[in-house]
Amino acid sequence: MYFLKNDYSEGAHPAVMAALERTNLEATVGYGLDPYCAAAAEAIRRRFACPGADVHFLVGGTQTNFTAISAFLRPWEAVVAASTAHIAVHESGAIEATGHKVYVLPTPDGKLTPALIREAVMAHRTGTEEHMVLPRMVYLSESTELGTVYTLDELTAIRGVCRELGLYLYLDGARLSCALTCGSCGIEPEDLPRLCDAFYIGGTKNGLLFGEALVIVREEFKPYFRNCLKQRGAMLAKGRLLGVQFQAAMEDDLWLRLGEHANRMAAGLREGIRAAGWSFLADSPTNQIFPIFPQTMVDRLAADFAFEEFDALPGGMRAIRLVTSWATTEETVSAFLAALRG
Amino acid sequence: MYFLKNDYSEGAHPAVMAALERTNLEATVGYGLDPYCAAAAEAIRRRFACPGADVHFLVGGTQTNFTAISAFLRPWEAVVAASTAHIAVHESGAIEATGHKVYVLPTPDGKLTPALIREAVMAHRTGTEEHMVLPRMVYLSESTELGTVYTLDELTAIRGVCRELGLYLYLDGARLSCALTCGSCGIEPEDLPRLCDAFYIGGTKNGLLFGEALVIVREEFKPYFRNCLKQRGAMLAKGRLLGVQFQAAMEDDLWLRLGEHANRMAAGLREGIRAAGWSFLADSPTNQIFPIFPQTMVDRLAADFAFEEFDALPGGMRAIRLVTSWATTEETVSAFLAALRG
Amino acid sequence: MYFLKNDYSEGAHPAVMAALERTNLEATVGYGLDPYCAAAAEAIRRRFACPGADVHFLVGGTQTNFTAISAFLRPWEAVVAASTAHIAVHESGAIEATGHKVYVLPTPDGKLTPALIREAVMAHRTGTEEHMVLPRMVYLSESTELGTVYTLDELTAIRGVCRELGLYLYLDGARLSCALTCGSCGIEPEDLPRLCDAFYIGGTKNGLLFGEALVIVREEFKPYFRNCLKQRGAMLAKGRLLGVQFQAAMEDDLWLRLGEHANRMAAGLREGIRAAGWSFLADSPTNQIFPIFPQTMVDRLAADFAFEEFDALPGGMRAIRLVTSWATTEETVSAFLAALRG
Amino acid sequence: MYFLKNDYSEGAHPAVMAALERTNLEATVGYGLDPYCAAAAEAIRRRFACPGADVHFLVGGTQTNFTAISAFLRPWEAVVAASTAHIAVHESGAIEATGHKVYVLPTPDGKLTPALIREAVMAHRTGTEEHMVLPRMVYLSESTELGTVYTLDELTAIRGVCRELGLYLYLDGARLSCALTCGSCGIEPEDLPRLCDAFYIGGTKNGLLFGEALVIVREEFKPYFRNCLKQRGAMLAKGRLLGVQFQAAMEDDLWLRLGEHANRMAAGLREGIRAAGWSFLADSPTNQIFPIFPQTMVDRLAADFAFEEFDALPGGMRAIRLVTSWATTEETVSAFLAALRG
Repeated sequence: MYFLKNDYSEGAHPAVMAALERTNLEATVGYGLDPYCAAAAEAIRRRFACPGADVHFLVGGTQTNFTAISAFLRPWEAVVAASTAHIAVHESGAIEATGHKVYVLPTPDGKLTPALIREAVMAHRTGTEEHMVLPRMVYLSESTELGTVYTLDELTAIRGVCRELGLYLYLDGARLSCALTCGSCGIEPEDLPRLCDAFYIGGTKNGLLFGEALVIVREEFKPYFRNCLKQRGAMLAKGRLLGVQFQAAMEDDLWLRLGEHANRMAAGLREGIRAAGWSFLADSPTNQIFPIFPQTMVDRLAADFAFEEFDALPGGMRAIRLVTSWATTEETVSAFLAALRG
Repeated sequence: MYFLKNDYSEGAHPAVMAALERTNLEATVGYGLDPYCAAAAEAIRRRFACPGADVHFLVGGTQTNFTAISAFLRPWEAVVAASTAHIAVHESGAIEATGHKVYVLPTPDGKLTPALIREAVMAHRTGTEEHMVLPRMVYLSESTELGTVYTLDELTAIRGVCRELGLYLYLDGARLSCALTCGSCGIEPEDLPRLCDAFYIGGTKNGLLFGEALVIVREEFKPYFRNCLKQRGAMLAKGRLLGVQFQAAMEDDLWLRLGEHANRMAAGLREGIRAAGWSFLADSPTNQIFPIFPQTMVDRLAADFAFEEFDALPGGMRAIRLVTSWATTEETVSAFLAALRG
Repeated sequence: MYFLKNDYSEGAHPAVMAALERTNLEATVGYGLDPYCAAAAEAIRRRFACPGADVHFLVGGTQTNFTAISAFLRPWEAVVAASTAHIAVHESGAIEATGHKVYVLPTPDGKLTPALIREAVMAHRTGTEEHMVLPRMVYLSESTELGTVYTLDELTAIRGVCRELGLYLYLDGARLSCALTCGSCGIEPEDLPRLCDAFYIGGTKNGLLFGEALVIVREEFKPYFRNCLKQRGAMLAKGRLLGVQFQAAMEDDLWLRLGEHANRMAAGLREGIRAAGWSFLADSPTNQIFPIFPQTMVDRLAADFAFEEFDALPGGMRAIRLVTSWATTEETVSAFLAALRG
Repeated sequence: MYFLKNDYSEGAHPAVMAALERTNLEATVGYGLDPYCAAAAEAIRRRFACPGADVHFLVGGTQTNFTAISAFLRPWEAVVAASTAHIAVHESGAIEATGHKVYVLPTPDGKLTPALIREAVMAHRTGTEEHMVLPRMVYLSESTELGTVYTLDELTAIRGVCRELGLYLYLDGARLSCALTCGSCGIEPEDLPRLCDAFYIGGTKNGLLFGEALVIVREEFKPYFRNCLKQRGAMLAKGRLLGVQFQAAMEDDLWLRLGEHANRMAAGLREGIRAAGWSFLADSPTNQIFPIFPQTMVDRLAADFAFEEFDALPGGMRAIRLVTSWATTEETVSAFLAALRG
């Protein structure tokens, strides 16, 4: 069975695993107060050019999202997200469980726009706003759940509308590495602290055993965040596991090279599929692609390849999701394209 | 200034006020355990033909909605509502503040349909439902926020889809009286306990100083609900105020006659406006109507009439909301129609 | 049956009821934006010498407490209260339901002290405070649930420790009128805004049908509080009912005179009971007293008097709670004392 | 520096680490649906003699506690715990953040008793229970935060009072291995499913990189728990990391042998300290001990040994906490005892 089901099917990249082994029997203080976390945080601050930012290490994406959003918002404030957003669909109501509405905007490509954001805010400035939540934060995924990316211009424009309307900008970077290295994004790491109030750098989907690095730029979000970590079960006892892994990931930009690899494998699939005459549900330059095949072909492919089925489409067609990762091999790409040809 | 702004501009209907005065100096136990609440609950059980139902008296609609919904749902369950629903728009995120997602379905007329409900459920049966909330309750308003009503057939069909899909049915009857007496609804009081798991009979918008009567039909929703009342600030110390008022309202079906009056006043407005050649945003048979006028005329009318402005429409047109109540007079209707004629 | 069970057994004081009747058929805007609420708020600001304070009118005490506390605290912050405090015992976990811990301090007389408050804070400064909540608010009841009062000196000292330790001071004045007029308190209305960050003036237990006036002094607590009111079901549709009642209560200091009356009736009971040789559970100068009788006498008294039984004590003795109100008559006092004599 | 600060200072036991390495590059499905989790769950069900139990793997203790407790309780229900309980003190209000009160009972030794539990319940059966939370769950730690243990008789007696009073019994086994192997406990693994409604087997403090295995025995707690996992950020993407580790831990009862080792190291310290004439704060037979030394000696020891300082005691004395683990060496024990002798 070849795995194209997601980017967290394997364990850790060997360099990350080696770092864990090397440090395994060292004794350190717990809860992320160890030297490895300090060094990893410093490496991130340097790479992202944000010397004053707070960096916290959490275990997973849903945990990072709800811990951060619930810490940053006040009870009457809501977060605005695309209808495909992870927080809107696939976190089992985690944000609402902390008391906050996710105000959802339908988008064809998983991307918010300044116009959509403005529309969301204006829908809450109708003269009855005392009876409504206050949209206060914009949530973006980079890359999005449909594999698309915000370009530097697009992100800059969204930042502009956030500033104008008094909104925080929070960026979910579960697949940030793939976005930054996809060739059509144009965002550099150092752009993010300038444009976002907080964002996280995904590790789980980019070669770590687990782990996300939350970067808090906005001053007022910083105090007592560690108490929030604890309250939400997000303060890992052996916190240094996160520091060790992120330190390894930051070294020589390994994190970016892993994303590049995943993108390259996805590009191989995309080009082969397109050359074979098939089309796609969304125009994704990153490691998630959504080709459309006849259901019969999908059923046949499923015998040898693990992937997710997406929407059923008219005429017996079916969109599927193929995900590549740092661990995907050329062999898998070739095998899939061969299977496609029958 | 003539008031067509809402159905809670005045105090209480004189009969209700008289009952409060008559009982004012009596001493009773608090918290709704008094004889007046017992008698009012019994009158409701009789009128709605639900001898085994629990009846609780709360102060307002938002309070009733979030107290009931948060008591009935488990943490992983969500409520499905029309995009215009009170709980979705005008309760400042009250449901989410108790931890539950409101899954919103866009509708042109404020009404859910079996097809929409089925679609909502199916969107959560995609193979990733462990990562999603479970839609478990359908929330309906009768009449709706756009003045429209569910007919008996429609409500019966929704009950059917709820039964098939394992959903609870909760009906917000803030304006139930106007719905039942509008002539195109066909629902009798005794239909509601048969079709709903819980519903409330609105008092605030129907001639009481304040108060809603929540009727709990479903057995498993009953235990410990009074602890929930207390926890949500919904257990009125002088609870008998609610019993006294609802007893007065139930007497000789005063509650229905008040709705009839409001509907009749709205019908007068509706027919006059239509006769004058204007159209409406929605086709409402109840006490909220939404005529469309040129903005210039709206501005002129606003000098003498209090009402809410709705959506701006193309061509300088504006929909407004006119609301009648038990307290609206023929004189107000005539004055509005006269003003319309210029 | 004579009622000494609580101070909300009757409806409203006649002057309050008359004001409601007089204004019953007027039409006003809803949600507390009417002229009556404005006038009542202004009267309160004047009487309490706090021209810059925000005044909000809510329906009940539990609602006021959890709406205010959850609006003022951040997710990692806790409120400190006496073990007998209403929020700790008799609000069915309302504060916790909004996500906040109530840190409870045992006290013999229902009163916190600077030493207890300091101890609570120090218990959270142990080197592991990132794993703990942050005590951030002190909750006091004035008078307390045991009928005792904080004197001006005591309240000033608590304010001092709050300032020193960075704590907010919130005062639950459900029975504020009885406290201020009991003769051994020494606090004037104008002291409260100077000493508290927020407090509420109880109406439900002081002659109104219902209603509490929350006074917010601290600047940072003010924005968006009305959204919180709505979210918590605390924004009454016919909000003017609260304004009308508080306006009547503030007129000629009626609110204080009602408290004085209740205190005077309690004093009559207290002196008679003491003269008859009985002792008390707590030394209360206000309208709640806690005499200790043999259980057999308690059983006999219960035939004609409604009251609450408190703790069973050694030797077959039982403390009971007698509560007087604006509506308690001399006749009730005499009857009780006569019954006591057998 | 010798580490006696906690039992999670190092990474994983070599056998656990080897299992992670061995499986690192395998591809599996995510979210705990992989064969390793299935096998580990089966091993646990076998070892604990609970073939029908559900086993879920979570990352940490706080996360396990609040995910389980909030899933099991209804909004009006509270959990009863010792005043030293982890959920009461060191989880930053995590339980309250999910809406539930932790009702705290002071205990000298960290252990609840049937009498204390009964007292807690009776304090909520006073005639005003509709105004109170309902104590519904008992939370025990085995071993406790003070290193003490419940014996089989004690746990059986607590189970009895829980059954009598309608309470659930939940056992936090963060240090379960040390409890079961300490020699004075008498509980076997197979006793736990018989006596508890749910419990967790700690991995983080017992040689895993991280991980806790929650065993749900009670039927009604089982449905939709995986949605709760997701909602609380407790569903690890690479869930198989937990399965792999617990499989290794269950093999040949490694988990028990690790606890035995920790206990043996603690016994060495305890006996040496006692032999040197010092006393202890609590009488602990497990891997946490609390000797009392003069502060001057504590300061001197702190130069070479990492440990936590506990309460300051009269006469310049200080209790400290020494924690041993699977990784503690005889050398560390000897070094500490040598340092003690000066």
